[in-house]
Amino acid sequence: MVDILHRVGIKSPSTADTYNALTAIDGLSNWWTNETTGESKVGETVRFRFGDNGFFEMKVVALDPGKRVLWQVVDGPQEWIGTKVDFELKQEDDFTIVLFKHQGWKEPIEFMHHCSTKWGTFLLSLKSLVETGKGSPYPNDVRIDNWL
Amino acid sequence: MVDILHRVGIKSPSTADTYNALTAIDGLSNWWTNETTGESKVGETVRFRFGDNGFFEMKVVALDPGKRVLWQVVDGPQEWIGTKVDFELKQEDDFTIVLFKHQGWKEPIEFMHHCSTKWGTFLLSLKSLVETGKGSPYPNDVRIDNWL
Repeated sequence: MVDILHRVGIKSPSTADTYNALTAIDGLSNWWTNETTGESKVGETVRFRFGDNGFFEMKVVALDPGKRVLWQVVDGPQEWIGTKVDFELKQEDDFTIVLFKHQGWKEPIEFMHHCSTKWGTFLLSLKSLVETGKGSPYPNDVRIDNWL
Repeated sequence: MVDILHRVGIKSPSTADTYNALTAIDGLSNWWTNETTGESKVGETVRFRFGDNGFFEMKVVALDPGKRVLWQVVDGPQEWIGTKVDFELKQEDDFTIVLFKHQGWKEPIEFMHHCSTKWGTFLLSLKSLVETGKGSPYPNDVRIDNWL
């Protein structure tokens, strides 16, 4: 098992705004993909579509307000199904720290390398959204390679 | 053992320019840190300084022109010493693909999360350097959190 790990720090007086951007559908739409639908409640699913490039469907496993969001992938690319996406939040002075883990990959395949870099750019999009009101969600996301 | 993985694709007709940016001291200076010194030859060391924030000293372990650059960390932060930084290059149509691995971390500590995100931004700086002639090396690098 190998994991994708990231850490971003968001200038924000508390974890509330970042938590909202990770749980409200219009929050998620403004940093990951503007094609976000579903219900962000424990036991329900949220679907993230990226035009013709595919989608991820996440079951919301845990929500701890201001502290943690945990999803499990229930549909999407084969390699993602069953993996978990974990956002832990904590406040350090003026920064909300996001500790991110995408856990449960079976093998460190080339697609995992791509997803690692891509998650980094999306987490910086989340940072930008909370700090400035504007993120870079799909279809305006940062292109990192020939797989978009 | 846990690894940091990334994949970027750089619009370039061959791997030559990217390989040069990973091996020439003035190439490295233009995407990672402008305080790069040393000799980029197998068995020699290259030192990457980030002002008062610290440095990494890498022994060049392998150089395969156009294909691979492998370093081992010999000095710097305790958690980095002994780890390996591996850049594999290949050409896919108009893109030079960089498969990046920072291997040999003992534990998935918070600092590793930070370094993963930071490597992503530096690899996008490498992409920008090769594609446009201008990267974002330290001290003009992307700030990702309260650890810079």
